[in-house]
Amino acid sequence: MYQNNTSQDDKETLKRRALNLHESYGGKIATEIKIPIHGLADLALAYSPGVAEPCRKIAENPADIFRYTNKTNTVAVISDGSAVLGLGNIGPRAGLPVMEGKALLFKHFAGLDAVPLCLDVRSPEQLVEICCALEPNYGAINLEDIASPNCVTVTRELQERLSIPVFHDDQDGTAVVCAAALRNAALLTGRKPEDMRVVLCGMGAAGSAIARTLKQIGVGQIAGLDKSGVLRRDTGEEKTEWAKHNFVLRELFAEDILHSPKAGQDLADLLRGADAFIGVSTGGLLRADMVRSMAKDPIVFAMANPDPEISPEEALAAGAKIVGTGRMDYPNRINNVLAFPGIFRGAMLAQQERAPKGLPTRITTEMKLAAIEALAEVLSPDERRPDAILPSPMDPRVVRQISAAVCEACRQQ
Amino acid sequence: MYQNNTSQDDKETLKRRALNLHESYGGKIATEIKIPIHGLADLALAYSPGVAEPCRKIAENPADIFRYTNKTNTVAVISDGSAVLGLGNIGPRAGLPVMEGKALLFKHFAGLDAVPLCLDVRSPEQLVEICCALEPNYGAINLEDIASPNCVTVTRELQERLSIPVFHDDQDGTAVVCAAALRNAALLTGRKPEDMRVVLCGMGAAGSAIARTLKQIGVGQIAGLDKSGVLRRDTGEEKTEWAKHNFVLRELFAEDILHSPKAGQDLADLLRGADAFIGVSTGGLLRADMVRSMAKDPIVFAMANPDPEISPEEALAAGAKIVGTGRMDYPNRINNVLAFPGIFRGAMLAQQERAPKGLPTRITTEMKLAAIEALAEVLSPDERRPDAILPSPMDPRVVRQISAAVCEACRQQ
Repeated sequence: MYQNNTSQDDKETLKRRALNLHESYGGKIATEIKIPIHGLADLALAYSPGVAEPCRKIAENPADIFRYTNKTNTVAVISDGSAVLGLGNIGPRAGLPVMEGKALLFKHFAGLDAVPLCLDVRSPEQLVEICCALEPNYGAINLEDIASPNCVTVTRELQERLSIPVFHDDQDGTAVVCAAALRNAALLTGRKPEDMRVVLCGMGAAGSAIARTLKQIGVGQIAGLDKSGVLRRDTGEEKTEWAKHNFVLRELFAEDILHSPKAGQDLADLLRGADAFIGVSTGGLLRADMVRSMAKDPIVFAMANPDPEISPEEALAAGAKIVGTGRMDYPNRINNVLAFPGIFRGAMLAQQERAPKGLPTRITTEMKLAAIEALAEVLSPDERRPDAILPSPMDPRVVRQISAAVCEACRQQ
Repeated sequence: MYQNNTSQDDKETLKRRALNLHESYGGKIATEIKIPIHGLADLALAYSPGVAEPCRKIAENPADIFRYTNKTNTVAVISDGSAVLGLGNIGPRAGLPVMEGKALLFKHFAGLDAVPLCLDVRSPEQLVEICCALEPNYGAINLEDIASPNCVTVTRELQERLSIPVFHDDQDGTAVVCAAALRNAALLTGRKPEDMRVVLCGMGAAGSAIARTLKQIGVGQIAGLDKSGVLRRDTGEEKTEWAKHNFVLRELFAEDILHSPKAGQDLADLLRGADAFIGVSTGGLLRADMVRSMAKDPIVFAMANPDPEISPEEALAAGAKIVGTGRMDYPNRINNVLAFPGIFRGAMLAQQERAPKGLPTRITTEMKLAAIEALAEVLSPDERRPDAILPSPMDPRVVRQISAAVCEACRQQ
């Protein structure tokens, strides 16, 4: 079952096939016409002169834009190309295939229309300004692959300034799926969240959002590491760079979300007796002996992409009870695609009721918690197994149940 | 044949039907998935991990973006909502139904994917800056419904800064169709362009581009009027506002495109003995007695929308030999939809050859003249009649012949 699909040959074949696919079709998404066009009479309604009527209505009542245009069902997938997949700052042009792919996922899984927007910007301020100028066209904004910590400030400022849902999938999408996975892994190994000690490796956009979210679902202790080692409350004192840029981490300590270990400890020290390892860092950094030193029936989420922090085969051999990755070709896929389609669909459904009343729609903590619970409960208790803690992304219950829960949570605000 | 379809009852019915159409479908366009998605294996190629390959290729060679993404076939339909149809500065939200409609026309007539972008901007400078930031995503930009004279500066600056085609349809699209119509009307009434005297009413974005283009196809004399009356070379001296803002008109006089009539003349004076009236102004301002005062077999293009400068019935009764409007419900539709689909398709086809060589693609005067000639010749001489100077927008030859001619003109540069 846990077969390694990543021999060198297989990797080369996948690359060639992916290039062929992208070139043959000339990209992955297109524009579709929703209304019947059979002749000039249809154009007279859809374009001049008929189109002047919905224009007039929206000019009188701006909320009517949700009634007469596709704004109501359209998501902008926005990136500056500064942190694309594991490829880094490859820029907006090279990032376009990813955003087209994300738009495809929105359509395929949630029936939402989505458009890729790779923006050639020079600063986070310009990114914010442009997103605000683009807002009339979209019912929601999904930010994607923006380098940390800029992504945090950009997301917060847009959430404040805009009245449509704004979501940074690399932060909150990942956090929702990871939290649902941990909840079910805890149930399967007989743990209570409040008794758990979690070691979190990688404190970028994803890692810091995961820490915050795990605290919200009641996890007892979370210690964090980044490239510079174990993070402590006084790390800022030692490393000027950290203190200057990582206001996000300062907040996590200030709000007592991150535990501050004793000085001098490393990853191996932290993992001794720990209940769960969660990695959103770099491939290969978790060793088998570290897994062996963890508590009984340890949980290992090695989510680095494309190469996990430890291969599932090795982790299981070292005694891990439950192993998850972000990859599609292993069991226990802790992948954003399980969350964002349902979250956006739920929020945009709620928006259809709220916008006509002049109410803004934001994706709140309550809505994220509702999504976590809904996702965790897609599989019934007897469907859940150590190699099936979460449903497959292709399971039609996923989007349906998450969107219903998110929409209801939004209604109750 | 010339039946008036615009009784008050009909107008109300059309408004109701247009609103119903827009509300029932929730807008007019959507996102379509171009590639087959049957399971997780397909997603592994289209999204993670396969998508990393086209990203890497584009990072190495930016021109590969035309190879692996839908940029190559995607047009941005961009407006700031400052001059929407005849409705004026109704803003980006109220302008969205028009841009969705335009995107629909691009897809329907040219097979191009198009996305509406109504931008909430505060200045033409910001509009330019945002279009530049958006460029990675699109193979061409169609500017639309931007108030004059800002539209002229915005278009020129973008054409200079970007290497993809940028076209302001209200300027050059209208001018191309009007020039093709006038060419055929001249042939049908036995006139040579160089002997013609044309009176042009309305000197906004469309009017000034029409003047320039008619001169390029050899029209002898063009006199212009705007809301303030007949325009003369020294108008700037008299009207400070004009001198300050209408650098476009100053250019037209400086380049001897506009004729400068004697002082004291009005529309009626100019029309006496004139060969053609071209109106892109406001409904109803051309009187029957003025038409009667024109040269034998006069040409009247009353293109104001939705109400023409004179109704076709009245113009014909007053002796006009050839009457055209911008409307879909009369013969001789001098409507942009005859030009922009073919022009963009031709330019974007040429771009597919040029971009890999690092060549920019711009829509030049030569390409516009090629479009005029191709459009004028869609109807064979024996198909052309006074009430059929141009083909129907539904005639499949239109896009095919224009795009071939434009692509060829682009190749020869």
